Order: sequence, then structure tokens, then C-alpha cells
Amino acid sequence: MSNDCVFCKIVAGELPSTKVFEDAEILAFMDIGPIVKGHTLVIPKQHVDPVTEMPPGLLARVMHVVQKVAAAQLNGLKADGVNIMQANGKCAGQVVPHVHFHVIPRFENDGHKWNWAAKQYEDMSEMGELAEKIKGAIQE
Amino acid sequence: MSNDCVFCKIVAGELPSTKVFEDAEILAFMDIGPIVKGHTLVIPKQHVDPVTEMPPGLLARVMHVVQKVAAAQLNGLKADGVNIMQANGKCAGQVVPHVHFHVIPRFENDGHKWNWAAKQYEDMSEMGELAEKIKGAIQE
Repeated sequence: MSNDCVFCKIVAGELPSTKVFEDAEILAFMDIGPIVKGHTLVIPKQHVDPVTEMPPGLLARVMHVVQKVAAAQLNGLKADGVNIMQANGKCAGQVVPHVHFHVIPRFENDGHKWNWAAKQYEDMSEMGELAEKIKGAIQE
Repeated sequence: MSNDCVFCKIVAGELPSTKVFEDAEILAFMDIGPIVKGHTLVIPKQHVDPVTEMPPGLLARVMHVVQKVAAAQLNGLKADGVNIMQANGKCAGQVVPHVHFHVIPRFENDGHKWNWAAKQYEDMSEMGELAEKIKGAIQE
């Protein structure tokens, strides 16, 4: 537990939350500032950040809960779709530095539109050079 | 394989892609319309959609590759952050109906800002009612 972490305080029961799922390792609760109403957060109880630092087994179990919550939004809220979103770093939009997956129910005409302003590569070699840098940094 | 699926064609080598990771089950390749340059897609080779239909073990292995790609963007591209994004359904912004995780490197001043127009619940009971519907629909 990190003493100044809002999500650790929610896990510890020191701050209130409206829970939809809980087990020994994972908690899912309502985001109080929903992009679309029904917006849920899924977190590991363990304080970990960023997502690259998560033990893969824990991430796997978190994602299984993400699947359950997404299915419950589709079935229980009759959502037409779902977004899963996760941010690492302030520049990525992360506010609370404790890994959390946003699971957002989507409806036709829910009024939300992602900013998806795609950029263009100058040419194939620019893309290829970035790909080589990523490829070269991937840990087996 | 789905015959009319662009990502299945990429997996089969019928359409070109710039790959950064590949194993028997999973492929990671560059998005040709990057939100931020370096934007990578991670997909299961198996045609599956939406994410709620994925076998949890396969999702776990996809997420492990997502972690590897995110770490490689941080280390290899010197990114300051990373977004992970996944859409299910047209209303969620999904274009290709084959599960894919966007792994987007983020940099201070990269010029991208997500639309994060949070809504407000009328009151706690509105949120509580939605939570109950989600909770009641979660499959153990």
C-alpha cells in the first residue's frame, strides 16, 4: 500500500467506493466521473504502476475481471459496445498512479467521441525506423 | 480466419505490415495511421471479437505482449508514457472487428489530448442503480 494513493485508500476502505466486483487481489468500482454512465475501474489491490511493472499473472487476472465487467455492461446495461482504456504517465492522461483499467460502456448516441486524430508518417522508412527501435527493445 | 477481415489477411501475409513482434499466437505491428508515431497494434492471430469472447488464457498472453511492446516504446523510443486502448463495437470507435489492442507511445507535448469529457451522475442513487445492474450481471 502507498499511503498517499487514492486507490490504495479505496482498497483499504479508508475512502468510499461503489463496488461491482471484489476478490482477494482485484477490485472493480464505479468511476465517479464517468465518460459514459456505468464507467467502471478495475484495479489490482496491490499498489503497482505503470502497467509494465505488473507481474504478468496478476495482469492476466485483472484482464479476466475486465472481461467480466465488460460482459456485464453489455448484458446488464444493454450497452452496444465497450471501451477498455489504460494510461501510464501524466502525458497519457493518467491521474492516479496506481494501475487501473477503465471499462466504459458505449451506446449508440451516448454523445462521446474519442479524439482519434491520426498522424501520417512522412514515408515508410520513418515508420520502419520506429518499428526497428521498438523491435530492438522488446525483451523476450 | 475470417475471409473479409483485414487483420486476418495481415496474419496470413496477404496484406503487408511492419511487424515488431510475432509468435505462434500473437502479432504486433505498426498502425499506419498513428495517434502518436510509434503506435502499435497487438492482436491474437485467431479471429475473435469482441474482447469478451476471448479465451482468458489467450487474452493473458496478448496482454503480456502488450506489456512487452509498451516497455519497448518506453525504452526503445524513450516515450514518457503509454496508452493502451481497446474498442468493441462501432459506437466505441472500433473499425476492424478483430480484437486489437492499441499501444500508443506518449511524449510530453506530443500534441494528442484524449477527449475526457466526464459526465456527472444526478445523485448517488443513479450510480448505485447502474452498479447493481453491472454487479448482478457479472458471471463468476
